Amino acid sequence: MPIEIPDVVIDRLPVYARALASLERNGREVVSSQELGTQLGVTPAQIRKDLSYFGRFGKQGRGYNVKRLLEELHQILGLDRKWTMVLVGVGQLGRAVLSYGGFAPQGFSIVGAFDSDPAVTGERLDGLVVQPVEQMREALAGRDIDIGIVATPAAAAQRVIDALVECGVRAILNYAPIAAHVPPHVHIKDIDPVLSLQSMTFYLKHEPAPGAPK
Amino acid sequence: MPIEIPDVVIDRLPVYARALASLERNGREVVSSQELGTQLGVTPAQIRKDLSYFGRFGKQGRGYNVKRLLEELHQILGLDRKWTMVLVGVGQLGRAVLSYGGFAPQGFSIVGAFDSDPAVTGERLDGLVVQPVEQMREALAGRDIDIGIVATPAAAAQRVIDALVECGVRAILNYAPIAAHVPPHVHIKDIDPVLSLQSMTFYLKHEPAPGAPK
Repeated sequence: MPIEIPDVVIDRLPVYARALASLERNGREVVSSQELGTQLGVTPAQIRKDLSYFGRFGKQGRGYNVKRLLEELHQILGLDRKWTMVLVGVGQLGRAVLSYGGFAPQGFSIVGAFDSDPAVTGERLDGLVVQPVEQMREALAGRDIDIGIVATPAAAAQRVIDALVECGVRAILNYAPIAAHVPPHVHIKDIDPVLSLQSMTFYLKHEPAPGAPK
Repeated sequence: MPIEIPDVVIDRLPVYARALASLERNGREVVSSQELGTQLGVTPAQIRKDLSYFGRFGKQGRGYNVKRLLEELHQILGLDRKWTMVLVGVGQLGRAVLSYGGFAPQGFSIVGAFDSDPAVTGERLDGLVVQPVEQMREALAGRDIDIGIVATPAAAAQRVIDALVECGVRAILNYAPIAAHVPPHVHIKDIDPVLSLQSMTFYLKHEPAPGAPK
């Protein structure tokens, strides 16, 4: 598959897949781009255009076959297989990540956890023994780890990301509030709630509050 | 200010502000769109185009004045004031949110916390007493809350979001893995690590691993 598809399109596909999975659980067999769009707050034209990058789905006026489109999206996104992840940083946030129930059902398994704090290493959490981050290279040597999750303080994050990349990890989920650098063959997604808040305050500031007097 | 600016542009402004704040801390007075772009992995043309929505910053060939551009972005994004937030859902994730050190320095204060579990309500965490979510309406009546943070299980999230909107909240930071509905005057940002992972696996699947044999 040629990868000249805009990143923003790729970012939307998991959202479509999530909505379709929910429809499938509710026994729905067909859905229109109109209905899917209303549910997700995007235009039907946007959905049709996004999907058109990957071939023809659905027939004019007949909507999409929910099960078939979901299978196609899983196949496109690589969600038809398992992915292995390691977590670096086992503070409060790292513990929340470890105990988060949403990864495993979607095929993402955390198979290793690392921290620099001797008070934390050796601890058993959710079936994993936290290992010293200094031993990460040896611990991961010869293992096939797809994704690194970084939940360290900001000051340590770039160093940890560099080490993960040296270990052959090609995707980083970064919770640290830094604009991290990775080589071109490595993908990174930041989870930064402050950036999300800061883009909403723009609208809070510039739009009048309807009704309720401030 | 007319709000016909694409959402993706607004989403990038906090990223620019974060990079400029870092440059300012390091004593930098001027930065080119070229250097800022390299640092953030976007093209200089993109940066210039994004900023052009808000007027003229920087002079051709002379770069941006770091301090002045940062002040302008703060003013545009509404980061020159304080914002109040309440948290609903005080499980492991909610606790990580409460203890997260990144909100307060950026002007975001959590001023209330709510949960439905009687084992949790009454507990004092980071200076807040967790209140029963059933009493949220009374607790927030007459108070000016800008943002609601939702860290409940998926099944409870839409109900909680509806209640927050009824309390006059106009922005939602949603950690629950649902495609939530809000009225047009309310803004919502989802924090969903699974969606971020799922858009990276597309690239892991379709791009060859360079060098390292798999």
